[in-house]
Amino acid sequence: MLLRNLWYVAGFSRDLPAGQKVARKFLGESVVLFRTDAGELGALEDRCCHRAMPLSDGFVDGSIIRCCYHGIEFDKTGACTRIPGQDRIPAAAFVRSYPIFEKNAVLFIWMGDPAQADPATAPSHRWHSDENWAWSGKHYALKANWQLLVDNLMDLTHLAYVHARTIGGNPEMHFRTHTQVKREGNTVTAYRHMPNSIPPRTYVDAAGFKGDIDRWQEIEFEPMVIRVLTGGCEVGTGAYEGKRDHAFQMVFMHAMTPESEDTTHYMWTAATNRIDRGIPEIVFKQIDATIDEDTAVLESQQRRMSETPGGKLVDIAGDNASNQVRHVIAGMFEAERNTAAAAE
Amino acid sequence: MLLRNLWYVAGFSRDLPAGQKVARKFLGESVVLFRTDAGELGALEDRCCHRAMPLSDGFVDGSIIRCCYHGIEFDKTGACTRIPGQDRIPAAAFVRSYPIFEKNAVLFIWMGDPAQADPATAPSHRWHSDENWAWSGKHYALKANWQLLVDNLMDLTHLAYVHARTIGGNPEMHFRTHTQVKREGNTVTAYRHMPNSIPPRTYVDAAGFKGDIDRWQEIEFEPMVIRVLTGGCEVGTGAYEGKRDHAFQMVFMHAMTPESEDTTHYMWTAATNRIDRGIPEIVFKQIDATIDEDTAVLESQQRRMSETPGGKLVDIAGDNASNQVRHVIAGMFEAERNTAAAAE
Amino acid sequence: MLLRNLWYVAGFSRDLPAGQKVARKFLGESVVLFRTDAGELGALEDRCCHRAMPLSDGFVDGSIIRCCYHGIEFDKTGACTRIPGQDRIPAAAFVRSYPIFEKNAVLFIWMGDPAQADPATAPSHRWHSDENWAWSGKHYALKANWQLLVDNLMDLTHLAYVHARTIGGNPEMHFRTHTQVKREGNTVTAYRHMPNSIPPRTYVDAAGFKGDIDRWQEIEFEPMVIRVLTGGCEVGTGAYEGKRDHAFQMVFMHAMTPESEDTTHYMWTAATNRIDRGIPEIVFKQIDATIDEDTAVLESQQRRMSETPGGKLVDIAGDNASNQVRHVIAGMFEAERNTAAAAE
Repeated sequence: MLLRNLWYVAGFSRDLPAGQKVARKFLGESVVLFRTDAGELGALEDRCCHRAMPLSDGFVDGSIIRCCYHGIEFDKTGACTRIPGQDRIPAAAFVRSYPIFEKNAVLFIWMGDPAQADPATAPSHRWHSDENWAWSGKHYALKANWQLLVDNLMDLTHLAYVHARTIGGNPEMHFRTHTQVKREGNTVTAYRHMPNSIPPRTYVDAAGFKGDIDRWQEIEFEPMVIRVLTGGCEVGTGAYEGKRDHAFQMVFMHAMTPESEDTTHYMWTAATNRIDRGIPEIVFKQIDATIDEDTAVLESQQRRMSETPGGKLVDIAGDNASNQVRHVIAGMFEAERNTAAAAE
Repeated sequence: MLLRNLWYVAGFSRDLPAGQKVARKFLGESVVLFRTDAGELGALEDRCCHRAMPLSDGFVDGSIIRCCYHGIEFDKTGACTRIPGQDRIPAAAFVRSYPIFEKNAVLFIWMGDPAQADPATAPSHRWHSDENWAWSGKHYALKANWQLLVDNLMDLTHLAYVHARTIGGNPEMHFRTHTQVKREGNTVTAYRHMPNSIPPRTYVDAAGFKGDIDRWQEIEFEPMVIRVLTGGCEVGTGAYEGKRDHAFQMVFMHAMTPESEDTTHYMWTAATNRIDRGIPEIVFKQIDATIDEDTAVLESQQRRMSETPGGKLVDIAGDNASNQVRHVIAGMFEAERNTAAAAE
Repeated sequence: MLLRNLWYVAGFSRDLPAGQKVARKFLGESVVLFRTDAGELGALEDRCCHRAMPLSDGFVDGSIIRCCYHGIEFDKTGACTRIPGQDRIPAAAFVRSYPIFEKNAVLFIWMGDPAQADPATAPSHRWHSDENWAWSGKHYALKANWQLLVDNLMDLTHLAYVHARTIGGNPEMHFRTHTQVKREGNTVTAYRHMPNSIPPRTYVDAAGFKGDIDRWQEIEFEPMVIRVLTGGCEVGTGAYEGKRDHAFQMVFMHAMTPESEDTTHYMWTAATNRIDRGIPEIVFKQIDATIDEDTAVLESQQRRMSETPGGKLVDIAGDNASNQVRHVIAGMFEAERNTAAAAE
């Protein structure tokens, strides 16, 4: 069961320079992403209609991508524009195309009904486009179902255990902190304030805090990304009254795009407002190490789940936010099913 | 088809120091074995009841094992003893536990009905606990069904061919030697006397024989281990009248515990009564090389069997002892089936 | 669906010196090929009838092959000739044998009804037996269905794209050249003349051409090999009137023998009439590099086809010859089906 009618993150804009192509599988379908020499994006079924050769083994040339086997050419709409050795192009000679566009240095693809693909509904991430912030990102081929990644990011207590050696800090602090969860439409946000906290290592390394700080964490789910806004400032300097420009801030984008039922394109970025003196590099390196801890957990969890389909799962109190997201997702599945049923 | 109601060797006691855990799969079920800080053994379903995380990724702490993901704790009975962040423990929050105990430096686990798990019925191997003997062991992940290993060890003629380069010796000698097979309950023993034999290389290396010797081999199947008692002494010095203390002796334990239908935990030990001057090391090294020859055969045989399910198999005279063991095992399967049917 | 009633290339004669054996899978069946000490060929089911051990793990000794496990022996007819430790040989103790013979340094095997196996119907390749020619060959384990390889070799336009960096030359030339296709029984031949051509690199390296040449290509499909006769000579010196002795010639044998539905033994040879001064080595090396380009394409194509079973395939003009071969093969399938149905 995979949701189709939404914009999925397909990659980063930097993955596709003009004249280049990349092969990716989304929702079990092999797709070739390419950028024409003039800079336009294309996303096509990665299978030539002649003899099933992957188009991604071919070459971008001007505005087309050419199959490497017999030289057949397709434009970004999937139309066959040339078959070497013959003048007539058969009506059946085309490949499926997928809506694709880019925003905030992120590529978005629509794997569902193209008629519903409105770019205005794609998630934004303005920090990628703000020159007062620095950011970096990574594409990780996660061997786990995408929903396990959503659970992981919306759950607020695993930091105490999974990240005990990195950003976790004292387990008890995480359980003492109250979490407020708010749902609006398909968006779920969890807010946590941690006044008078000991700053974690990354905060000290990046911002040079000498005493305690007022920290915040805001985790926003919007299908199918999770933004995490986090930061801290000297105690009593306005963190909870919305004065945060002087604070040390980190904003994360976590995109989870299903490759198959059991594998996920996990694409994440980390941005910070401390952009001088190598700080962004320190932040990125420490976050990278932290996320490695998560992906190891998720892949181990997936292996066990695959071994025990239908096995018992018992909820705990910490599942509140992730369960609200599960409800949102269940509603989206239901809506897709109804739309599909109505169409029949 | 895998037998459940018997004690299987789960490993060696030395595999589990206090405060440690190890992940193993038995009969297709993932199990975490652990030893508490106080030295008690636990064997639990290796899957946290919260989100299916393997408990073997977690940590032993005092008398519990803690899940690495959200810190949930279980004791050796499988009871959940703590869920961080909440006071109430739901009734469904527990994992399955398996009977486990140790004897003669061997760990035994019971994968079937716990009510039938009587430690008195587990095989013994006193040589592991006799300080006049030295022993060493190995755990080999065999890519073959466990029954092929039983066949191999009970069959007395393959030595001539599989071990021609190591302990086999002259093929004809193996066929001239008479084998007496005795069955008592579920135990099958094959006896062979080889008077006036040329001593094999291992015997000469370990005991310094200069002339011919009187040899014996006793192969005892007791579900699901095979003990092999073997040795030799100068001709006419009492080997066949039960006087063997002065002889060179080697005693082997071969345990075959199904991991799945097609893979087996093959755990074997070699013990000897010649414990001085590096002799045990010589014995173990030569036996290890010999067993490598067997496992190569078994894995090749399994590959071909998997390719040709239901293919023709023709018995030969040498199958006598292994066929008696097959009858014992068939009887045990029948008994388990009847018990299961009666329980429904 | 795999054709059974024809002679498949099983390997090269040089693969099997006297006293040697080799394990191969044909049409999903594991076969051991061996040559007795006296030089006779045997092809047996690679599975001992006792306990399913692969006979290819055993040894050839005189006129038999001996199982490595318990020493059971079989001759080249598949008859069991000895069971160590017993005098009687049970009637069921035999393994299947396959017709096998060799011609022109090539081994041929018949996987279908032995009654129909007439060596006179096997393809010939006289260049392997002509001392005025030099040849070399290779066995490639292709991870693709055999029919994709037939398509590749019968199709005359892929050279422009797949081999653009090696023997392809100018794409346009390939499309300008007229191809004449002739079918006789189960044989399909495509003829192409390329007068006044620029000689490709291999031609210049091997024959030292300084100006343009008259080239020809003749591609002959005869189940289940494809012979390619190709060459060139100075313009107007008789290439198209059958005077070719003075020309530079290369003759290829491409044999495609199914290992399974998705894997193929691709065995090819390259022969040339320029046998002095290292020329054959130059030819073979350049052809080898070219064929690597094909196998990469075919394996990528197979992966995509396996992902999209039943997916759309649109023919183009260049498919003429390969489609005629497909018709031949479809007819052979039909004939085998009818024979099988009549036999029931």
